[in-house]
Amino acid sequence: MTRYEELAGEITRQIRAGVLRPGERIPSVRQACAAQGVSPGTVQQAYQLLEDRGLIQTRPRSGYYVSATWKSAAAAASTPAEPEVSRPPRASTSVAVSDLVFEILESVKSESVVPLGSAFIHPSAFPLAKLARFMGTATRALAPRRMVADLPPGNPELRRALARRYLAAGVSADPDDILITHGGMEALNLCLQAVARPGDTIAIEAPAFYAALQAIERLGMKALALPTHPREGVDLQALKEALNKQRIAACWFMTSFSNPLGSLMPEESRRELVAMLAAREVPLIVDDVYEELYFGKTRPRPAKSFDTEGTVLHCSSFSKCLAPGYRVGWALAGRWAQQVRRLKMMSTLATAIPPQAALADYLKQGGYEHHLRGLRSALQAQQGRMIAAIAAHFPAGTRVTRPQGGYFLWVELPGKADALALHARAAQKNISVAPGPIFSPQRRYAHCVRLNYGQPFTPQVEAAVATLGRLAKSLL
Amino acid sequence: MTRYEELAGEITRQIRAGVLRPGERIPSVRQACAAQGVSPGTVQQAYQLLEDRGLIQTRPRSGYYVSATWKSAAAAASTPAEPEVSRPPRASTSVAVSDLVFEILESVKSESVVPLGSAFIHPSAFPLAKLARFMGTATRALAPRRMVADLPPGNPELRRALARRYLAAGVSADPDDILITHGGMEALNLCLQAVARPGDTIAIEAPAFYAALQAIERLGMKALALPTHPREGVDLQALKEALNKQRIAACWFMTSFSNPLGSLMPEESRRELVAMLAAREVPLIVDDVYEELYFGKTRPRPAKSFDTEGTVLHCSSFSKCLAPGYRVGWALAGRWAQQVRRLKMMSTLATAIPPQAALADYLKQGGYEHHLRGLRSALQAQQGRMIAAIAAHFPAGTRVTRPQGGYFLWVELPGKADALALHARAAQKNISVAPGPIFSPQRRYAHCVRLNYGQPFTPQVEAAVATLGRLAKSLL
Repeated sequence: MTRYEELAGEITRQIRAGVLRPGERIPSVRQACAAQGVSPGTVQQAYQLLEDRGLIQTRPRSGYYVSATWKSAAAAASTPAEPEVSRPPRASTSVAVSDLVFEILESVKSESVVPLGSAFIHPSAFPLAKLARFMGTATRALAPRRMVADLPPGNPELRRALARRYLAAGVSADPDDILITHGGMEALNLCLQAVARPGDTIAIEAPAFYAALQAIERLGMKALALPTHPREGVDLQALKEALNKQRIAACWFMTSFSNPLGSLMPEESRRELVAMLAAREVPLIVDDVYEELYFGKTRPRPAKSFDTEGTVLHCSSFSKCLAPGYRVGWALAGRWAQQVRRLKMMSTLATAIPPQAALADYLKQGGYEHHLRGLRSALQAQQGRMIAAIAAHFPAGTRVTRPQGGYFLWVELPGKADALALHARAAQKNISVAPGPIFSPQRRYAHCVRLNYGQPFTPQVEAAVATLGRLAKSLL
Repeated sequence: MTRYEELAGEITRQIRAGVLRPGERIPSVRQACAAQGVSPGTVQQAYQLLEDRGLIQTRPRSGYYVSATWKSAAAAASTPAEPEVSRPPRASTSVAVSDLVFEILESVKSESVVPLGSAFIHPSAFPLAKLARFMGTATRALAPRRMVADLPPGNPELRRALARRYLAAGVSADPDDILITHGGMEALNLCLQAVARPGDTIAIEAPAFYAALQAIERLGMKALALPTHPREGVDLQALKEALNKQRIAACWFMTSFSNPLGSLMPEESRRELVAMLAAREVPLIVDDVYEELYFGKTRPRPAKSFDTEGTVLHCSSFSKCLAPGYRVGWALAGRWAQQVRRLKMMSTLATAIPPQAALADYLKQGGYEHHLRGLRSALQAQQGRMIAAIAAHFPAGTRVTRPQGGYFLWVELPGKADALALHARAAQKNISVAPGPIFSPQRRYAHCVRLNYGQPFTPQVEAAVATLGRLAKSLL
């Protein structure tokens, strides 16, 4: 729980205990700062959360007051419980989820839709105007021969900049080991092709990112979904048992802020995971595209930093944290680096040169850290407001994850509520959600949806969450 | 034979016949224009060719004179014969050429190499500075939501501009049927995946572009190389016989200026090819990345223009004609359009947005036609000079193609000359060539090399051709 949520919880307790009564003024932001030893931003976030939950009200030029209707609001707003560890079937299975995924993606492409089912952060969160300037100047400055010379592995300045960032995160990477790809998606697909053959079994999280399922399906492989904790990721004991029982060709996990659960595997578990797989020579593909979007004080140490044997294939990209649409990602493929590079040359040859040059310059002098700090804090605040809105509007018994980064909430609806039906009814009201079955090789999670909080929490978004809550209630 | 070559031939005959004697002045450019009814450019190209061949000499501020040593020069310069129709084995075969291709590509990446083995035109031939300006302005002008909205099929303005160009070439394409890809390579690979399965047989040209061989190898398919005419492309009679004898899952041909032969399939043959395959429901993948680089008066009519059944998958790109390094290509995949689009979304998701926007603007107002006219005429002149240099320096009995477009010559060395040995010795002298075996599933064409004339014909290039000729002689 973050500091502002703790503060909000404390004020809630005071209201419940009658220390603060309906209509009474609560401490001003300045008073609360002094009393609690926190920053004004934290107090403001806490008060915003309490207002969203209907416990307090703002009176312009006067202050914050306990709401007259706080009791009913508090009943609704008791923060929802988190989901439990997933319990997928223990057998590996072929995958046939692609058609459903496409159907759902195509149905929500319209601009007028409130994109709670989107996989992207709202573009307004990115320094696109600044990047466009870098795009112009970097492209003009490129020596013509670079248009041919920057074949795989890609722009050398960009690879050096990435290697420096990874070094700071505990990963010692030679720039020559970094292959620039068309986004994280290409990196992941190439890595999977490099380490496994058709018919092989790939261990994944449960629920898992649908693109992982699609890649496994496209390449004729099988998926083994493992029990996954909503906060801590894959259950390592279950993984160990599976490894002892059957041949697993590779694991494909998201150790930081997984899609859709948002789980963050603890550092000790990462170390254990890497060692366990290396001992068995099983490659670990890490989809780490959310690695920069942490809410904690420090960046989680990548699994790759524990990789002494070259068995970790680390994939990431700028699409989620800086430059959507630029399609610049990368792979550090360890032992399989040359093979992944050759697969790249055979399938798409090279990555577009100008966007690589622009990003290399931006990393050097664009203010990346400043941008990231702002983005993380916006995402964290938006998460709090969306959880509060879900608490206020969704049926009792709804469970919600509490990710420590990224921009997805995984919502378990109570009872037999059907997420595909919710998706269909919401689409009619121009709201998208990502229904649970697209995250499962067996189309499980029929009562779950993934919601995206990577957009400003406008009244329109709040109204959309309220509408979803009403629709969910009507499905019970 | 082009007009300027005819004129050069005529003057050669006059010198041989003694009409023009050593040391005598030949007609000035103006006189020749008037006498022959041709443009000054044609006369200049003819005189340049004669000079390259050592038959005439320029005296500054005086004119052109028959060379005193014209006899020995003429003996060397008799234009080499063309290669014969290829005769590959009649059985389909698995492919294992990738390692050799990579070895050769990696060995010649250095900047100091004279890149006669390159697959690219020299970057100086492209309007890169202008494109860079479009890149800056187009990226700045993009609405942020486009960074997410321009998912496959890609930038709508670019697809409309391409559809208009194809309409003018006789292909009626709906912009929604055009999928923007990461270069032609991705388009081709996606199309092949969409129409064929592992183990299937794919009919190809002989010799064939090595990337086609690599794609077939990577996907576990088999190749059937067909007899191919150096001017007219695949032998349709041989194709018909093969179709009657065995199941062919798809054809992958380059109908315009194939790589490496440079063949141009005549319009009537294209029509027949498309009809023959459509009647058997066999998909035709056309790699048409050289379609804009024709030397004739009009653009060859694409095979796609004869496609009434949707069985032609037309792939092309800007990498060869306008914007190398931008990695923007496309596919018009007919019946398989949706499937190709989905394969794209599953493997690389989307194509970088800013380069697409820049190219859309450039096509509208950048002067594309003007650029193309200049490029075509430069390539044609460079071809003439390289053929003359080969004639002057390579061993007697060497055969050379006479492509009507593109920028490759296919050179057959006489006797048992070993192209891989030539490649190795040339590399020591910082000259690259593309040896024949990388263009064959059976590593045939051991005595052939592909030479690239897509670069200004500088003294350095001429010296490199002379060195190659010497090395080739030493191998006999």
